[in-house]
Amino acid sequence: MILAKVLGNVITTIKVDGIEGAGYKIVAPCTPLGAAGDGALVVLDLVGSAPDEFVLVSQGSSTRQTELTKDKPVDAVIMGIVDIVEEEGKVVFRK
Amino acid sequence: MILAKVLGNVITTIKVDGIEGAGYKIVAPCTPLGAAGDGALVVLDLVGSAPDEFVLVSQGSSTRQTELTKDKPVDAVIMGIVDIVEEEGKVVFRK
Amino acid sequence: MILAKVLGNVITTIKVDGIEGAGYKIVAPCTPLGAAGDGALVVLDLVGSAPDEFVLVSQGSSTRQTELTKDKPVDAVIMGIVDIVEEEGKVVFRK
Amino acid sequence: MILAKVLGNVITTIKVDGIEGAGYKIVAPCTPLGAAGDGALVVLDLVGSAPDEFVLVSQGSSTRQTELTKDKPVDAVIMGIVDIVEEEGKVVFRK
Amino acid sequence: MILAKVLGNVITTIKVDGIEGAGYKIVAPCTPLGAAGDGALVVLDLVGSAPDEFVLVSQGSSTRQTELTKDKPVDAVIMGIVDIVEEEGKVVFRK
Repeated sequence: MILAKVLGNVITTIKVDGIEGAGYKIVAPCTPLGAAGDGALVVLDLVGSAPDEFVLVSQGSSTRQTELTKDKPVDAVIMGIVDIVEEEGKVVFRK
Repeated sequence: MILAKVLGNVITTIKVDGIEGAGYKIVAPCTPLGAAGDGALVVLDLVGSAPDEFVLVSQGSSTRQTELTKDKPVDAVIMGIVDIVEEEGKVVFRK
Repeated sequence: MILAKVLGNVITTIKVDGIEGAGYKIVAPCTPLGAAGDGALVVLDLVGSAPDEFVLVSQGSSTRQTELTKDKPVDAVIMGIVDIVEEEGKVVFRK
Repeated sequence: MILAKVLGNVITTIKVDGIEGAGYKIVAPCTPLGAAGDGALVVLDLVGSAPDEFVLVSQGSSTRQTELTKDKPVDAVIMGIVDIVEEEGKVVFRK
Repeated sequence: MILAKVLGNVITTIKVDGIEGAGYKIVAPCTPLGAAGDGALVVLDLVGSAPDEFVLVSQGSSTRQTELTKDKPVDAVIMGIVDIVEEEGKVVFRK
């Protein structure tokens, strides 16, 4: 998984996923200290994250291992909201 | 998923996919503000996109989770056309 | 999928794939205008391509969705030979 | 697989994985000599690693091939703790 | 697949793969001319390669398509030893 920061929403009306009850978010991959990496991903939000929240993103076939995403053409999901990141015994991020 | 901009068409006559009724597009990965990233991908267009449209591209095994692509050797599809991208409450892209 | 140019052949005698009737090619990922990108891939050639031909390469689990590659440890195949690439209505590549 | 060094822990309370009995670690991809590469990954720790330990990380669908991760939306796991790395007959890392 | 050069061995005693009869090697991705690329991978050696040998590495779910790796959490294997690489009709590598 990667750490990422939620930037906002992506709205698509013409689409083939057939998913109801969850929306697409745009996120930036981040370091634990919050610095954004290159690029942006569009991910299905399975946990109801808010803008600027720090989240855990899973990619690939693993993203289809939930009830909502089973058999869906989705390759990235927000699978958790990050509360704490500890490095070498020190808290480097706390929600 | 990634955001991408449709550049044009790729035509192949000798191929092994056995797919009818959808064509290959060439797309450039983009940021929400429209700047194209490095590289280009060839993707199967499941939604009937037009050149210069901003689309959602899914990659990997997830691309086979549609009726048209089931059991096909395709690793990237256009799964949606982007209407709106919002970042921090502001619309940064509108179709 | 990615566009790639066929560079040549790779011959392996000690191998575990159990594949007969198709050979491994070495290819360079390319742009539609033919400029080669970084790196080189080894791919199973399902269409009988020739050196310098411009081809479509599929990667990952999708490469096992053909009769020849079913249940084989192959992660990249040439799935088509590119005839034409059009960008913004103009032909930028023709075989 | 890649070699990585364990940096610390990631704690998420709102999550969709339904996994009990293993925790998420943050790791930095490394060379055999211990130099950390770019980026950081969040991985499920299947072996009980400690901070600063050198571990083997598996990614993608292969990470679901254990009892704990079967059918879970996890895309990276620590599958082993590295004891020794030998290069050209010389030990370049020993735990 | 990618071409890679075998650097040496990786030994792990605490691990979850349950694999007997094959060892982990550390390899460097290479060009056909032998120049090593960035990074190093750890791969399960299915063919019994020796240090400095030039090998074919398969990655992802395809690596589980052999008797030894079926249902194992392994994401990269050496699937063949390279004998010859030809580019544009010339042999650029011979074992």
